[in-house]
Amino acid sequence: MSRTLASTPREDGFRAPGEFEPKAGCWLIWPERPDTWRLGAKPAQKLFARVASAIAQSEPVTVIASRRQWQNARTVLPDAVRVVEMSTNDSWLRDCGPNFVVNDRGDVRGVDWTFNAYGGFDGGLYHPWDRDDLVARKVLEIERMDRYRAPIIAEGGGLQCDGEGTLITTEQCLLNKNRNGHLGKPEVERQLSDYLGLETVIWLPRGFAFDETDGHIDDVCCFVRPGVVALSWTDDRNDPQYEIVREAEDILLSSRDARGRRLSVHRIPHPLPIEMTAEESEGLDHVEHTWSRPAGNRIAASYINYYPGNSVVVVPEFGGELDRQAKAALAALFPNHEIVGIPNSREILLGGGNVACITLPVYAGRRNTTRSE
Amino acid sequence: MSRTLASTPREDGFRAPGEFEPKAGCWLIWPERPDTWRLGAKPAQKLFARVASAIAQSEPVTVIASRRQWQNARTVLPDAVRVVEMSTNDSWLRDCGPNFVVNDRGDVRGVDWTFNAYGGFDGGLYHPWDRDDLVARKVLEIERMDRYRAPIIAEGGGLQCDGEGTLITTEQCLLNKNRNGHLGKPEVERQLSDYLGLETVIWLPRGFAFDETDGHIDDVCCFVRPGVVALSWTDDRNDPQYEIVREAEDILLSSRDARGRRLSVHRIPHPLPIEMTAEESEGLDHVEHTWSRPAGNRIAASYINYYPGNSVVVVPEFGGELDRQAKAALAALFPNHEIVGIPNSREILLGGGNVACITLPVYAGRRNTTRSE
Repeated sequence: MSRTLASTPREDGFRAPGEFEPKAGCWLIWPERPDTWRLGAKPAQKLFARVASAIAQSEPVTVIASRRQWQNARTVLPDAVRVVEMSTNDSWLRDCGPNFVVNDRGDVRGVDWTFNAYGGFDGGLYHPWDRDDLVARKVLEIERMDRYRAPIIAEGGGLQCDGEGTLITTEQCLLNKNRNGHLGKPEVERQLSDYLGLETVIWLPRGFAFDETDGHIDDVCCFVRPGVVALSWTDDRNDPQYEIVREAEDILLSSRDARGRRLSVHRIPHPLPIEMTAEESEGLDHVEHTWSRPAGNRIAASYINYYPGNSVVVVPEFGGELDRQAKAALAALFPNHEIVGIPNSREILLGGGNVACITLPVYAGRRNTTRSE
Repeated sequence: MSRTLASTPREDGFRAPGEFEPKAGCWLIWPERPDTWRLGAKPAQKLFARVASAIAQSEPVTVIASRRQWQNARTVLPDAVRVVEMSTNDSWLRDCGPNFVVNDRGDVRGVDWTFNAYGGFDGGLYHPWDRDDLVARKVLEIERMDRYRAPIIAEGGGLQCDGEGTLITTEQCLLNKNRNGHLGKPEVERQLSDYLGLETVIWLPRGFAFDETDGHIDDVCCFVRPGVVALSWTDDRNDPQYEIVREAEDILLSSRDARGRRLSVHRIPHPLPIEMTAEESEGLDHVEHTWSRPAGNRIAASYINYYPGNSVVVVPEFGGELDRQAKAALAALFPNHEIVGIPNSREILLGGGNVACITLPVYAGRRNTTRSE
């Protein structure tokens, strides 16, 4: 039901939609592994269920669960959420799942990047990652969508598209020697353009400090709509992200997108620094082949790691006044959406990501006969 | 996406469709276990792929494969067949899958019987069977269909419905002490009627000799359309099924269906007796907790174990002149279908069943405003 195509999306007239475009559904993976998720993943499961329930108000949600966790996930999640058995290595579906591409006839296909768990044996987060590298294909099978297998290593969380031919990404991630450094920037840009249907790639040199993913863009900034970017921002000179957000803003403001527009940048408060406590670290299995998360480990938190659904925007909360400010800033950018906060999303963050990292939006195909405006 | 309902199909106005009714799809399970399927299941996989491909001409096919076999199944099966990961104990989806029920508004739901691998610890075929007992629910989740969990032990292969309120089944199976014997016939009949929307149950005392399932009806006879039954038949007095087919025909001819009609019975040739060879038995893993299949083991073969799709009827072949006769007899009963034989379906039979046993038709919901004719 899902063909693997030998062509590229660009050749076939497909493009990556913007994150804000209409969705047909959303998928997540139920967290389970005890070396990523403390206390047998019970606290994280509660949070994932909250995120799934929030999104289910907006579009149909499917949660992937392993054979061992299927019954438990089915019991804990509301009826409205579909639970599908699948084997995975961890729960970052944004990254191991497909990037969807659409054309103007309403067709949707998937791009299946090569996945190496954020760097393979050179700084990657876990081994093995063989099951995660099959997840995109398995999701596309269930969705009955055709597939492109892309020859470069990438994760969805490292890619921010405006749906009109512009990508924002980081050199730290995609040009890392543990991803595609050997190919060189022009070749990586060519591949991205072929598989996402791009004309312009805006490169930031790096993502946030303490980000385990080698600088995914999805903590730093994202397109709210074409020409409009939300950027995580701090004025605290002692925050290790201080220089990074300035560098990012400078580049964004000096760039033009694929349509030749200058970008409008909206600053969203950056959360206070977060560290793993001794109690939290003790709740983990500590094993070889998995990224070490000792007590005192700094974690890159960001409100930018939200999920924009058809009618809701699901936003991580960490507690405190900044939650309110961040939600107010996002509410101003999404006046027609309900802003749904996820209290205590720290339990997701402890695993290394947040709401955006665990969610895979499936885009709705739309016929468009007036695109060439 | 799939609610488990506390009511019964009868209460909700649902009925089991006839096997011949229009289908929205068909599911199978990729064979794998080396104690059921010889030579690491490679010969059986070839045959299952043939069955899946034949049905895919007629309606969309989904094949369930385990994590270990998913890539292999995806590679071997044609693109048109969807491959979905799921854990199972064996490959008899007719029996562990749901029985679908429909209403006149075009809704389709599933009945999830309790499954105990054909008799549990009292003559059942394998242990454990926990994964198989979850398969019906998992299929219904993917299909986004609501579910009834039925309190009796039954398998789809033991039930033949005409879609108009009549069921044919066997006492040997459903009233067996290893299924529902303790409940008594009236209570079992009541449950069947509630969950399949029946008015009339026609009980045959037994199914075929050597049938590992305790006499499933799906080797003996089936409805071709309401009022018309195909019955496996032999005139060979030395065939151990000789008495059984006569007993069945006598009962069918003396019964009336739920609409008060007498049944028309069409005799289909019964295959010659089949025995497992020493070479075939040696290709199996021989383990405790799995039904023993030594050399010389007699196997109940039947052409009645076919799959009637929307445009094809997929029929097992065992080699020889009887194949031709059986296909001709079925062609006369299905004049608008293409009859597709499956040569060497012996490789499926060696596992204990055949085309009908491995296929789960998903019925198409149809609005019907003129049913109360």
